[in-house]
Amino acid sequence: MDCCVIPLRHGGLSLVQTTDFFYPLVEDPYMMGRIACANVLSDLYAMGITECDNMLMLLSVSQKMNDKDRERVMPLMIQGFRDAAEEGGTSVTGGQTVINPWIIVGGVASVVCQPNEFIMPDGAVPGDVLVLTKPLGTQVAVNAHQWLDQPERWNKIKLVVTKEEVKEAYQEAMFSMATLNRTAAGLMHKFQAHAATDVTGFGLLGHANNLATQQRNEVAFVIHNLPIIAKMTAISKACGNAFNLVHGTSSETSGGLLVCLPREQAAKFCSEMKSQSSGAGGQGATGGAWIIGIVEKGDRRARIIDKPRIIEVLPRGSQAASQDNSSTSPAPSPNLS
Amino acid sequence: MDCCVIPLRHGGLSLVQTTDFFYPLVEDPYMMGRIACANVLSDLYAMGITECDNMLMLLSVSQKMNDKDRERVMPLMIQGFRDAAEEGGTSVTGGQTVINPWIIVGGVASVVCQPNEFIMPDGAVPGDVLVLTKPLGTQVAVNAHQWLDQPERWNKIKLVVTKEEVKEAYQEAMFSMATLNRTAAGLMHKFQAHAATDVTGFGLLGHANNLATQQRNEVAFVIHNLPIIAKMTAISKACGNAFNLVHGTSSETSGGLLVCLPREQAAKFCSEMKSQSSGAGGQGATGGAWIIGIVEKGDRRARIIDKPRIIEVLPRGSQAASQDNSSTSPAPSPNLS
Repeated sequence: MDCCVIPLRHGGLSLVQTTDFFYPLVEDPYMMGRIACANVLSDLYAMGITECDNMLMLLSVSQKMNDKDRERVMPLMIQGFRDAAEEGGTSVTGGQTVINPWIIVGGVASVVCQPNEFIMPDGAVPGDVLVLTKPLGTQVAVNAHQWLDQPERWNKIKLVVTKEEVKEAYQEAMFSMATLNRTAAGLMHKFQAHAATDVTGFGLLGHANNLATQQRNEVAFVIHNLPIIAKMTAISKACGNAFNLVHGTSSETSGGLLVCLPREQAAKFCSEMKSQSSGAGGQGATGGAWIIGIVEKGDRRARIIDKPRIIEVLPRGSQAASQDNSSTSPAPSPNLS
Repeated sequence: MDCCVIPLRHGGLSLVQTTDFFYPLVEDPYMMGRIACANVLSDLYAMGITECDNMLMLLSVSQKMNDKDRERVMPLMIQGFRDAAEEGGTSVTGGQTVINPWIIVGGVASVVCQPNEFIMPDGAVPGDVLVLTKPLGTQVAVNAHQWLDQPERWNKIKLVVTKEEVKEAYQEAMFSMATLNRTAAGLMHKFQAHAATDVTGFGLLGHANNLATQQRNEVAFVIHNLPIIAKMTAISKACGNAFNLVHGTSSETSGGLLVCLPREQAAKFCSEMKSQSSGAGGQGATGGAWIIGIVEKGDRRARIIDKPRIIEVLPRGSQAASQDNSSTSPAPSPNLS
């Protein structure tokens, strides 16, 4: 599971908590703080928990930074983390900071819940529909952006993508990673989700597999569609599929929720995700939502079909974005209709 | 405060939690795991909390270790951490591991409490007595032990200490750091402690000062006695007081609790700490307890008197230990009688 759930000594309550820490992957320290916080909270959101009682921050300052850089960078990272926590309706009241060769940023999220506040991720049934709430491809976007300054790397991909497209994809990835999965967590209750997980280091297929193994019923997850940040599929292919993006195992950071919904609720879930997203806009964005597959009878595994449909997700700012981000009418597919 | 205390949405309960992570300082990975866990839990114990609902472990594996060393060292460290958690009546149900240049070990301790389960550390009154439950000098002992293999360092201290004494002090420090402050936390309730903190990175005086500033009453803490692992004072002096041990600012790891007790309870607290310690023995030891000072009317600061009495605490195994560890009859001192 994404969190540990501990029955407490008091009144049928449970302590749900999770921790996560990792290394910077975007250049903007403020955004890095937001991403770290979104990534920690995401494990609660994956259980349909929308509240968080407390956060602790885990930090290490790099011993290789000079005082000036340290004083410029670390407060921004801390502020980003705090701001994302506030957006999640919680606050950071403790933590620990050490000196380390590498910068580390992460945290702990804890909440004490009544049983109806969380959704155990084990209730998928055949006929359910799988929805993903953020596009894939964050790792490819972050790497491609670094390659802009590495001619030998850049030469490998320059035939399939422009510098401008890489910069746009990087921005899109950064904002996507910094987006809280909180709206999706709330909608899981409204539309009676049967199970969910968040997509991070093991990629879509890795986490889908983990989720499938935990199911009470004998089910299998079959993924037909892959919403991917625009152009990232082309880059991944130009690198000889080094990222395994279309195989579903490219690592993601602070990815979306993969949610199992009753068939009749999935389109409504996507529609409401989209309307809340366009309402809030900008930093308050909620991500999108795409129907990506179905739950069948099976042996508790997940798989991606042979030639999945790639949905190119254009950056939010771009003209065509509203069209391609649209998730209310999933592509007609024999398996999904 | 040593922990954060978060009022919850349910039934007057509070979430109390703390986190800590740091780098190995003893050579034995199993003991290092125990020390890390004792250090994390100590913040709860300082608030008189004897239970812990959940622990998370934070680990980083060093990228510089080869596979063989990694497979030998890390499971032992994890086991030490788990065993100490079990001794604390809790268990480790989650965490995060990353690769890093340096090994990191730490954790998160969380408990949901009713108001009577914790003692807010702000109730000291003039006339209270200060008790310390572990001897000082862990950092000196760990460093001196490393100097056994560094001739130029060793030459500075070899006139005041033997190799055997350094090894004994190191063992004593290691077991002391691995000892949970749980017994002391329980006795804080029995003997109506008014406030407490644990002694770690800022040394005795640093943490005493922190505690003094938080008091509701206008009080000052005056420290007369310093219980120190045998020979560590001599080593510190031989190094030109580089550790500031007798000034109270030598860093400690997983140190004892500094407890403010009503005058009439302090000796009984010490006596019971001692009897529980000798009863359990070995790894179940509870540390000792020494009356080290008093609470006066004052400006919310702590100080050590000009020539504090040094109590040389002999290793547990040694013959004279029972005599010098004795804490039931504090030395006659005009300020303490």
